[in-house]
Amino acid sequence: MIHLLDDEGAARAALSGVLPADDDSGSPSDAVARIVWGALTEPGDGLAGELISTFGPAEALRRAARDIDARASPTDAEYGRALKRWGPRLSSTVGADGLRLAAAKGIRMLVPDTALWPTPLDDLGPHAPIALWVRGDPALLGSGRTALALVGARAATGYGDHVATDLAGDLAGSGVTIVSGAAYGIDGSAHRGALAVGGPTVAVLAGGADRSYPAGHTGMIEGIAARGAVVAESPCGTAPSRWRFLQRNRIIAALSAATVVVEAGWRSGSLNTAGHAAALARGLGAVPGPVTSATSAGCHRLLREYDAECITSADDARALLGIDASGAAELSGIRSTDDAVRVRDALSARTARTTVEVARRSGMAVADVEAVLGLLTLGGDAERDAQGWRLGSRG
Amino acid sequence: MIHLLDDEGAARAALSGVLPADDDSGSPSDAVARIVWGALTEPGDGLAGELISTFGPAEALRRAARDIDARASPTDAEYGRALKRWGPRLSSTVGADGLRLAAAKGIRMLVPDTALWPTPLDDLGPHAPIALWVRGDPALLGSGRTALALVGARAATGYGDHVATDLAGDLAGSGVTIVSGAAYGIDGSAHRGALAVGGPTVAVLAGGADRSYPAGHTGMIEGIAARGAVVAESPCGTAPSRWRFLQRNRIIAALSAATVVVEAGWRSGSLNTAGHAAALARGLGAVPGPVTSATSAGCHRLLREYDAECITSADDARALLGIDASGAAELSGIRSTDDAVRVRDALSARTARTTVEVARRSGMAVADVEAVLGLLTLGGDAERDAQGWRLGSRG
Repeated sequence: MIHLLDDEGAARAALSGVLPADDDSGSPSDAVARIVWGALTEPGDGLAGELISTFGPAEALRRAARDIDARASPTDAEYGRALKRWGPRLSSTVGADGLRLAAAKGIRMLVPDTALWPTPLDDLGPHAPIALWVRGDPALLGSGRTALALVGARAATGYGDHVATDLAGDLAGSGVTIVSGAAYGIDGSAHRGALAVGGPTVAVLAGGADRSYPAGHTGMIEGIAARGAVVAESPCGTAPSRWRFLQRNRIIAALSAATVVVEAGWRSGSLNTAGHAAALARGLGAVPGPVTSATSAGCHRLLREYDAECITSADDARALLGIDASGAAELSGIRSTDDAVRVRDALSARTARTTVEVARRSGMAVADVEAVLGLLTLGGDAERDAQGWRLGSRG
Repeated sequence: MIHLLDDEGAARAALSGVLPADDDSGSPSDAVARIVWGALTEPGDGLAGELISTFGPAEALRRAARDIDARASPTDAEYGRALKRWGPRLSSTVGADGLRLAAAKGIRMLVPDTALWPTPLDDLGPHAPIALWVRGDPALLGSGRTALALVGARAATGYGDHVATDLAGDLAGSGVTIVSGAAYGIDGSAHRGALAVGGPTVAVLAGGADRSYPAGHTGMIEGIAARGAVVAESPCGTAPSRWRFLQRNRIIAALSAATVVVEAGWRSGSLNTAGHAAALARGLGAVPGPVTSATSAGCHRLLREYDAECITSADDARALLGIDASGAAELSGIRSTDDAVRVRDALSARTARTTVEVARRSGMAVADVEAVLGLLTLGGDAERDAQGWRLGSRG
């Protein structure tokens, strides 16, 4: 892989299967370097992030590879420790397996500063993912969308599952993307609630995007990939680990305008996601439950100690997202909110599309698309200019 | 009654059955005038409160009676309207029935600026009660005590009743007086939870203190009168009314350092009590519940809109009261918290008492009283000086 850094044509060829077709704004050498960096590092490696931001991915990699080969002893002790942890993984083919797996499974790579990159991730600074691997629709992560993280306990109660399913269905039905971690319990209920109404949902995995984890959720994760997006920062083929689970939570929080914890024990991992959301100045909400339920103790802790908003309904969650009721009221005029979701999904914030093109992408009749686009325009969710239709700036 | 205003000896004789034996700091004429004012006005009559505060109760009454008799048309329109509403109730015997009923049933009258008057009521300004009628132990309302209002829906669920009973038992067991309204549902569970552990509890009624309302709670209210205090601002014999229920809520809030709503519907009357607590700068808490329960909707509204503290346990409620955990820990060293409650009840903030006197009042052995007093001293709940034992300033 490393030889591709100095052969732009070969790099472009190697990447042809994974870079989004209509998104060639990045440098092929830099994209290859990001694949290698992803294989050298563990998620959230701030020093790698700083080097990449200082020198660019390819040049930063050349420097690190040179220093590893030379067994350099840099005066900067932190850099010295980083060389020691990256060194053992460095080889001429590092990253090739992940790239091959991604290409074989139709998994796309998104890199920073390109059209499809979810810019909210940049708020993570040097701890932003080096790249993002997407199984499913990369446009779902686009900046024109409003996303809410719905997370919570694996060992959820029937109450928690019920509330998560209801909230996700209502919110996804009104066009809000439901982001979660595909785990058992609340995560699964959130994804399923969105899928049930044909709404948008994104699963962020702790291992590679090609690996459906947990295995018991394989069917659900396939469904998310088919109708939403399954994303991961680790290269394809990577197994989840405890560290990767914790780091995964920062991506769930960063991708979302707000995080709502539905059920959580006193020390639940979902409080980690809530902490990331707060640190990123995102909205933070918690669903209350019976004080006699240990599975709501973490939510009450968020209400008491972290000033989380008390979320009792989808309207409360929309208020947390800053979506006013009038927008929702306009959308509710459409008989099937699914149609609105499908039309929105077929729009891009950057690329203008004709009504016929939107009809083709959404699998709907042109007349139906025109009706829905008219309503979406009222709410600012769609905009038309000389080139065609785009996702509106508030969509 | 009005003739007593000008005959101090006769006034003192008439009051002998209702004024607390060891509390003769007030003027008999003023006390009589307060009884008359109580019969002339409805609770919370701010104009009466202002006149009383300006001229004193007896002189204010003389002036009002003169203006009513003279069918005066004062230039002050508000005062004119007040004369019209007081006039129909004015007679030479107004207040006498209430006084007779109180004396017959051993119900005491507390008046402002006397030793037993609960000074927190003064925070109500001109809307403070003109007098307070107490069936039971007037000392329970003393300024040395910490009181918490536990209120909520009449149509409580099993969950709400369970939480109210638990909170009241734990708090009353640690010496906190539980104040509530003796209604069905949460109020009743709160009183019963306190009574079950032999802890202090105060019921504030909307009618006269002699009338056990609701009738289905007669037994419970008798129990509160026997082991705590049943209080009312309306004269004995008064039936409860919708207005008196609403005004009663301000007394519950004012008597308590904090109000906690356990269960409440979206428009529950207990939100009125919560509003009074907030207006009086008292602590305000709400117990969360399932978002699927309409009976918790009012509590969640308090959490969302009124910045109420989320209360999940007795410790949370103690934190709201500003009671630190160390004080509770010290008390918990006593085998029976009932003993501590009984000794505290036998102490006064103003009057010093000997160990023997405390033993007599609490019905406990002198040796046991000495042990408990030692522990109470550690927490600041009791203090000793040359005259004897008093309730501590933080008790």
